Amino acid sequence: MAGMSKTNSGNFFEDFAVGHTIWHATPRTVTAGDVAVYAALYGSRHAVTSSEPFAIALGFESQPVDDLLVFHVVFGKTVPDISLNAVANLGYAECVFRASVYAGDTLRAESEVIGVKENSSGKTGVVYVRSRGINQHGTCVLEFVRWVMVNKRDQSAPAPDEQVPALVDVVAPSDFAEPIGSLDFGGYDFALSGAAHRFGDYQVGERIDHADGVTIEEAEHQSATRLYQNTAKVHFNELEQKQSRFGRRLIYGGVIISLARALSFNGLENAARVLGINGGRHVAPTFAGDTIFAWSEVVEKSDIEGRHDVGMMRLRTFAVKNESSAAFPGETAPGKYAENVVLDLDYWVAMPR
Amino acid sequence: MAGMSKTNSGNFFEDFAVGHTIWHATPRTVTAGDVAVYAALYGSRHAVTSSEPFAIALGFESQPVDDLLVFHVVFGKTVPDISLNAVANLGYAECVFRASVYAGDTLRAESEVIGVKENSSGKTGVVYVRSRGINQHGTCVLEFVRWVMVNKRDQSAPAPDEQVPALVDVVAPSDFAEPIGSLDFGGYDFALSGAAHRFGDYQVGERIDHADGVTIEEAEHQSATRLYQNTAKVHFNELEQKQSRFGRRLIYGGVIISLARALSFNGLENAARVLGINGGRHVAPTFAGDTIFAWSEVVEKSDIEGRHDVGMMRLRTFAVKNESSAAFPGETAPGKYAENVVLDLDYWVAMPR
Amino acid sequence: MAGMSKTNSGNFFEDFAVGHTIWHATPRTVTAGDVAVYAALYGSRHAVTSSEPFAIALGFESQPVDDLLVFHVVFGKTVPDISLNAVANLGYAECVFRASVYAGDTLRAESEVIGVKENSSGKTGVVYVRSRGINQHGTCVLEFVRWVMVNKRDQSAPAPDEQVPALVDVVAPSDFAEPIGSLDFGGYDFALSGAAHRFGDYQVGERIDHADGVTIEEAEHQSATRLYQNTAKVHFNELEQKQSRFGRRLIYGGVIISLARALSFNGLENAARVLGINGGRHVAPTFAGDTIFAWSEVVEKSDIEGRHDVGMMRLRTFAVKNESSAAFPGETAPGKYAENVVLDLDYWVAMPR
Repeated sequence: MAGMSKTNSGNFFEDFAVGHTIWHATPRTVTAGDVAVYAALYGSRHAVTSSEPFAIALGFESQPVDDLLVFHVVFGKTVPDISLNAVANLGYAECVFRASVYAGDTLRAESEVIGVKENSSGKTGVVYVRSRGINQHGTCVLEFVRWVMVNKRDQSAPAPDEQVPALVDVVAPSDFAEPIGSLDFGGYDFALSGAAHRFGDYQVGERIDHADGVTIEEAEHQSATRLYQNTAKVHFNELEQKQSRFGRRLIYGGVIISLARALSFNGLENAARVLGINGGRHVAPTFAGDTIFAWSEVVEKSDIEGRHDVGMMRLRTFAVKNESSAAFPGETAPGKYAENVVLDLDYWVAMPR
Repeated sequence: MAGMSKTNSGNFFEDFAVGHTIWHATPRTVTAGDVAVYAALYGSRHAVTSSEPFAIALGFESQPVDDLLVFHVVFGKTVPDISLNAVANLGYAECVFRASVYAGDTLRAESEVIGVKENSSGKTGVVYVRSRGINQHGTCVLEFVRWVMVNKRDQSAPAPDEQVPALVDVVAPSDFAEPIGSLDFGGYDFALSGAAHRFGDYQVGERIDHADGVTIEEAEHQSATRLYQNTAKVHFNELEQKQSRFGRRLIYGGVIISLARALSFNGLENAARVLGINGGRHVAPTFAGDTIFAWSEVVEKSDIEGRHDVGMMRLRTFAVKNESSAAFPGETAPGKYAENVVLDLDYWVAMPR
Repeated sequence: MAGMSKTNSGNFFEDFAVGHTIWHATPRTVTAGDVAVYAALYGSRHAVTSSEPFAIALGFESQPVDDLLVFHVVFGKTVPDISLNAVANLGYAECVFRASVYAGDTLRAESEVIGVKENSSGKTGVVYVRSRGINQHGTCVLEFVRWVMVNKRDQSAPAPDEQVPALVDVVAPSDFAEPIGSLDFGGYDFALSGAAHRFGDYQVGERIDHADGVTIEEAEHQSATRLYQNTAKVHFNELEQKQSRFGRRLIYGGVIISLARALSFNGLENAARVLGINGGRHVAPTFAGDTIFAWSEVVEKSDIEGRHDVGMMRLRTFAVKNESSAAFPGETAPGKYAENVVLDLDYWVAMPR
């Protein structure tokens, strides 16, 4: 059985040491092909990521790859090293999209271990990593922190020194200077973008029902997850999942994030770019056959010094399954959610003024 | 509930005034990626849209994007403004493909309201629009008329002056001078195209069974419809559709058109381009699990003045569900169809001589 | 019913004469779009076919198209002429990938009939063809032999002279001089490729469990097979297949080959290229809903004269359905297989040293 050693069994809790950096496989050249598959899977309609001339008019080099496609590609690379033995994905934070990605760019990913904390059971521990997506020029295009609960290989192994990183709840708008700096929203064409609502038309506290519902098929979420080269087995192996408490394949949470973003076009047509993600909570699992709806709340608005063309809006988008989002089902008490809520995503977008 | 105002609730009958032009969102750069997804969804095998050298040998700048993919992209853009509140898509006519579209081109769409007619019920009305697909150079690549029955917002609103446009039953062959003018079918390679049958080998009245059947899955028609950024909710929302008279998601009629065209390769291998569509009738709805067959009749043939390399054939292609097309099920009396017929499409193709 | 003559009814046994060459339709320009759809369908992670800079560092002109995608495209073209009336695909051999294919290349296919042998029943015969994939420069990029059992059109037709080609069991490593000659694996980056195992780390006889399982959906195998323009009706027509002994659609064997190759990344991360296929046996049919696992055995290793950067490994990869591959289910006696084995693929790969 010598060959068993060649099979990647992933890292266990003991394998993570604070300060270590892991280079992830496999570098991936993102192409117009990936953009098209992504479109077919989510039906996104934001003009910036749909039309090359529209994007170029704003100062992009070309039509940028959807921010969330970039996120999923980078995230997918970290899975075999970080979360193959994860019991749970506990959260993510401090996600900043630092530079645009264009068709033809090649992305690789690396993760620095920034925290470890063994659980009292002695069977598992929490690992914190800061992951970065890096393009072929060595530029960081995306970074985010995530923390996962990972099994120990050997329960009798001694606990490492506990180290828990201090993470901000909300990314500061000043952190988005880079991605916005080179753009000029002055030429933003509201006639072609799908709606006239601008930065000034939204109020803090305003709620927007995105109205439409989309039912997800197994072939769709599997294709999406493979496009990201994310190999987490819970998404693909029906035979094994039948033995799990869910009894079937789980949909990768990123599929719900992308779907919620695509649905949010209806009411947030000009939320041109996702600048960063403050945090995301996958409140409940989703499965093939579920119909997903979404609604958003404007949480905060932020001017950008010296800019009259664009502002930042902090949004909280909730996805709901098998129930219309018209009644705005959301968080009912801190950390408690209305039945059927599956996603609570807190993020910043750029919005033309 | 202020936010509700941001949600696009679509136009109602009263919102359409003859002479108005609506610019539709979202401009879309069509790429080789879209072409590949389209291929994976329909399996089209016509050489002109499959091989770049084959296309260039005929005078195309490059491999043109499939005419029907262009149609669906343009059509998809009109949906949120024209047919979001449609009770029924009643028909289309005068569809002409005016210029080739290539990977990298960006398409936008606009529609001019050319007719309105309130129904006697006072609850709905028929709206006629002429829609145009326009590329990044401002060139019209496609135009067509369609008419839809749309709900009134307010049933007590007064009826507008009735205006019904005069539409031709059959597009005149002379209208296709533009798309054919720059092409030379002299170098058409019948050895590579899949069959030796040329313009002269087809007889008016001839019927061709395309023989093969294809079963459609939910994931397939949803991906196709999203690729076109067509958001009509009946195609995606199983939860809501369960309450409809169909009890499930409806397949976008354009999926059946593309499938019938792909199936028609078997017997119409050299029907190189769709030049225009005279009219199309979606006789019955289709659903995931249906197996689609197709057959065609040669309705008319037309020489092109001064051209010995190519002629035009007017075809009528019928799609049938869950029944072989070998017995040529079609129209049994004016407007009446054999059971299981789902599509009656009347169109012109270019065929090398 | 004159039109029936236009419908391609395929070739029957009598139509194949030794020495004849058939040019197949339809030439196909392979693009980055096809590469993306392939990625979404299989989730392949080998760095050479995922990253353009990675590939260029090894001497490729650009990121090569996955060898198996090339195989399926070429194979697909042969189907309408060779195997439309096939009762069974009996085998293939002597498959050599002669040159890299890049996005933008156009592939056509031709087959030379190299053997015929009527069966004793007088109802069918075996046809042997050598098929070649040829790019736009006229370069052969791939060749392979396959043999199929084909129905006779007329059972009373006299049997042709029996001619059975001599085929080698294993392609000689020297036949791969061409595809490897221009490459230099000296700059192969094991940090990015997913594992440190090199040529020297594998032992003849070593078995590797690829561990992961993937459940296949109808929409996935249909999309894959259409991407290859493979129209064999058993994969698409549920209505007709319900009447068959299987009672449902069959998955194209090439889907299982590609899936097994993608799964084999886990343990064979650096099996950078498939150089050739010695033979493949589709031991049992697969259907939507099946979960596929795979394992491999190192059968042979071969140095390459004068090369210290790369060696060749002959692998045998078995795919299994609905059962973990951890127990290495394989061939139990010559030509006999453990229950649930669906594929036995014998092939050569290039592996950096």
